[in-house]
Amino acid sequence: MITIIAGTNRPNSRATRLAALYAGILSELGAAHQILDLADLPADFTATALYAETGRNAAFNQLARKAGEASKLVFIVPEYNASFPGALKAFIDGLPYPGGIRGKKAALVGLSSGSQGGLLAMAHLTDILMYLGTAVLPSRVRLPGIDQYLTAEGELTHPLYQQLLREQATELLAF
Amino acid sequence: MITIIAGTNRPNSRATRLAALYAGILSELGAAHQILDLADLPADFTATALYAETGRNAAFNQLARKAGEASKLVFIVPEYNASFPGALKAFIDGLPYPGGIRGKKAALVGLSSGSQGGLLAMAHLTDILMYLGTAVLPSRVRLPGIDQYLTAEGELTHPLYQQLLREQATELLAF
Amino acid sequence: MITIIAGTNRPNSRATRLAALYAGILSELGAAHQILDLADLPADFTATALYAETGRNAAFNQLARKAGEASKLVFIVPEYNASFPGALKAFIDGLPYPGGIRGKKAALVGLSSGSQGGLLAMAHLTDILMYLGTAVLPSRVRLPGIDQYLTAEGELTHPLYQQLLREQATELLAF
Amino acid sequence: MITIIAGTNRPNSRATRLAALYAGILSELGAAHQILDLADLPADFTATALYAETGRNAAFNQLARKAGEASKLVFIVPEYNASFPGALKAFIDGLPYPGGIRGKKAALVGLSSGSQGGLLAMAHLTDILMYLGTAVLPSRVRLPGIDQYLTAEGELTHPLYQQLLREQATELLAF
Repeated sequence: MITIIAGTNRPNSRATRLAALYAGILSELGAAHQILDLADLPADFTATALYAETGRNAAFNQLARKAGEASKLVFIVPEYNASFPGALKAFIDGLPYPGGIRGKKAALVGLSSGSQGGLLAMAHLTDILMYLGTAVLPSRVRLPGIDQYLTAEGELTHPLYQQLLREQATELLAF
Repeated sequence: MITIIAGTNRPNSRATRLAALYAGILSELGAAHQILDLADLPADFTATALYAETGRNAAFNQLARKAGEASKLVFIVPEYNASFPGALKAFIDGLPYPGGIRGKKAALVGLSSGSQGGLLAMAHLTDILMYLGTAVLPSRVRLPGIDQYLTAEGELTHPLYQQLLREQATELLAF
Repeated sequence: MITIIAGTNRPNSRATRLAALYAGILSELGAAHQILDLADLPADFTATALYAETGRNAAFNQLARKAGEASKLVFIVPEYNASFPGALKAFIDGLPYPGGIRGKKAALVGLSSGSQGGLLAMAHLTDILMYLGTAVLPSRVRLPGIDQYLTAEGELTHPLYQQLLREQATELLAF
Repeated sequence: MITIIAGTNRPNSRATRLAALYAGILSELGAAHQILDLADLPADFTATALYAETGRNAAFNQLARKAGEASKLVFIVPEYNASFPGALKAFIDGLPYPGGIRGKKAALVGLSSGSQGGLLAMAHLTDILMYLGTAVLPSRVRLPGIDQYLTAEGELTHPLYQQLLREQATELLAF
């Protein structure tokens, strides 16, 4: 099972659309998958699901389970302030430790309206995942200027971007 | 005005105690300062103060103002999963852009129960602050093994750690 | 005195041309400066100027002095394998310690034929410079796709790139 | 075949001793291996084996071949100025591209006399290796305070350090 994580809690995000698109690629490749959209995080999760409250928020636990039960993860990571969204890191901070997303294999996709394409966001996230014992696929896909290439209906109009995602998904299956 | 940011929303954190301790150092050095404790973040701030909701949560705005009105910032950064707390990044993600913490000078203190002392956390945060146009003092103080050296009353029993913080505070005033 | 470091030992490099161009900007701004071109490194410097041999290679020492006598540094950093050139790091490894480039102020310019523009190269170099006690100007300038915009005569045909360098130079003078 | 890279050209380095020690572990685990010691780099390799000279230095090529013919690599990385040695990066810059160390699996060991244990060095190197399409084992082993624990004869007197290396080697075989 591969879980695709839409890595922001922003409603109706590009990450959500790209997660759906990635799911379509995995379907074509015949790989079982599900989507974990951080837009579904409980509004108060940073107060009710972390630290002393770890494990006590049922809605959070349901999302955490989607990550935990997968052997492979795909992180769709929008670039916020030159790194990953705080909500994504707070989600990771609330996962059971050890456990959570330990010992898995992960593929990273970065997206930005600017020209960095989530490069630093993915470098930072790699440090975190490696600390958690999760191996990261070397092919970290950058999607800069995403505003121009992703339609409101979730269509990706940049052929190279489509190809990069398909190649990465294929590599993840073999990883 | 220097604002000291206790960089986690965990209640009764070591970061809160270290922020108070840093405030004491700044008092001795005669520097005006205030504390911004992320433990005061509204429970639902990730849903009510970010993205389309930026600027609409009065309690969040009050904290954001404490950061915005300072010319210098001290970040007390506990290490969570080999990086900074997600709540700290989500706070930054909710600041007005541009503006927020742009164009300031910042000192970073990392703390961990393990042996890294927030090294990667501070490297990641530096990338973010530089992107926001905030200069980071080169002396990034690492406080590994903090559990052994910080008492429940907020006393720091490690003389070298005290010295490092005092030296950093002195450098920040001249930065 | 500002020393501009052409950060590779590759002969006739784009970094050398950009260092000359940056020197022109500093001249216009009325700031004293000189160029330190790593293309002038002795061929055997990694064997004769590092470790137990530190300080014993006269030609290396002359370059090191150019860095040491400046109060501010500009690093022109080509991207090699997603980071800075090994020759640049080996040059830093051969500087006297402590001393060398400690306690200075630095501006970073990254260039690449690809689309990253030296982003990771500059993030890595920032970690090193901060460790050495050198403050890094937050405005790290990225020049992706440099092949298209820098002529063989050293003219920069991209108006935005020219503007970014001029703005950075101005900020460096005030830093 | 696993190639263990002693990641500095410093003569008689701790990295060389640790490479021999790692070779012993791989022998016990029954894994074929060889050592590539960067102390064997030609003195003038940065002038005669890089850029336009790529592939023209026979002694360099012999070392490059040792890296290229392995399916897995172990990098023993001493911490110099809070990152990896410049000589290691210059070696990588001289490898044939594409090719060189592309598409392999790598394990990283960091060592330092100070308390960081090569943490940033390994984070920076990870960015480079991933760019080259080489997967990095999540377990990056840090060996801080190595001066106290590695004898002149190459004995590692810290039981935990021995255990960490053995565990990493075992994981690398399964990676």
